[in-house]
Amino acid sequence: MTGGEEEVILLDFWASMLGMRCRLGLTLKGINYEYREEDLRNKSPLLLQMNPIHKKIPVLVHNGRPVCESLIILHYIDECLPDTYPLLPSDPYERSQSRFCADFVDKKFYETGRKVWSTKGEEQESAKRDLMEIIKLLEVQLGDKPFFGGERLGFLDVAVVPFSTWFYSYQKLGNFSMEGECPKLMAWVNRCLEIESVSKSLVDPHKVYAFVLQLKKALGLE
Amino acid sequence: MTGGEEEVILLDFWASMLGMRCRLGLTLKGINYEYREEDLRNKSPLLLQMNPIHKKIPVLVHNGRPVCESLIILHYIDECLPDTYPLLPSDPYERSQSRFCADFVDKKFYETGRKVWSTKGEEQESAKRDLMEIIKLLEVQLGDKPFFGGERLGFLDVAVVPFSTWFYSYQKLGNFSMEGECPKLMAWVNRCLEIESVSKSLVDPHKVYAFVLQLKKALGLE
Repeated sequence: MTGGEEEVILLDFWASMLGMRCRLGLTLKGINYEYREEDLRNKSPLLLQMNPIHKKIPVLVHNGRPVCESLIILHYIDECLPDTYPLLPSDPYERSQSRFCADFVDKKFYETGRKVWSTKGEEQESAKRDLMEIIKLLEVQLGDKPFFGGERLGFLDVAVVPFSTWFYSYQKLGNFSMEGECPKLMAWVNRCLEIESVSKSLVDPHKVYAFVLQLKKALGLE
Repeated sequence: MTGGEEEVILLDFWASMLGMRCRLGLTLKGINYEYREEDLRNKSPLLLQMNPIHKKIPVLVHNGRPVCESLIILHYIDECLPDTYPLLPSDPYERSQSRFCADFVDKKFYETGRKVWSTKGEEQESAKRDLMEIIKLLEVQLGDKPFFGGERLGFLDVAVVPFSTWFYSYQKLGNFSMEGECPKLMAWVNRCLEIESVSKSLVDPHKVYAFVLQLKKALGLE
């Protein structure tokens, strides 16, 4: 997958947490790839052809064949290159727990975060409480380890850390401090950001905030 | 996992497609386990302790440690016993496609099926059309192979075939014939049912129908 004859293309959108997972995973694996930015209001024929079912980014196109859904893409690159920076733990039970937590994040974090920036009043307060419950569960999973993967980044770190690029927007639009509410998770974010592969793969939270303000305007949510 | 000192318990509910996935997977793997039926209106302390996040069956408890979510349970038993009846294909790309389709089934099939038996009129007609679209996509994935896994049952067969126990209810309550609408998938169901591990792991569709009628009554949907 890293050889000269391999063609790896990532169809993505810059502010997508799910896209950033793939960018970070590809970077950790040392896989060269071509990044193609999608206009989500005018999706490319290639995206519609490669992901006809969901029509969503990210899609990894490897030698012309698509792999869709960010966690499935992480599994795929981990299994294509098992010896280079393994993402999933080697122990079957630890693997199951990493998958469970990543699945939980996909089922809960994204939508709850969206409610934090897109709603007001009691609905927003409720979303903030839900977000903190989710984060507390992640903090339990982290325990006293520096990373979810132990001494180094693993599958769950890669799955979760892109969400941190939206934390600034959650805080500004939800009017609360995550540093005050969940210092343990925030310390983990800072440890991750000290790693060059992470800081290079994640986008600027202030740019995300400007994008979220635009999005709210476009959705008539101001 | 098959040795005498291993304790494997499945917390389950008889009519659950997701539970039947696990029962079939455990049977194919030759894993001895203790089946424990849950009363979903009065969940056991063990279920609440083992799956505090979702509080849902199925849960596999292996030597006191829980694994939750049916597809994650299938991965777990496949990775614990990689040499006995491998469920996932060995090729990384084929693996990614099995995962993608199983994920698609989880995201679409369950909820669409529920709408087919629980709604009426235009809502039900729309759900029936959606169900047929989902099934057509599965038929494309099946292609000319006898099973999704090729010449024998694989991960995706195990993930999908339990839904067939609800087909009789969909047809009776939706007033349509799946034999007429999707003969290719129905032929695959029949091929699966000729395999003893499958027929032993799946429940009687008529019992499911009686249960669905009870459920509709309890939910005030008659």
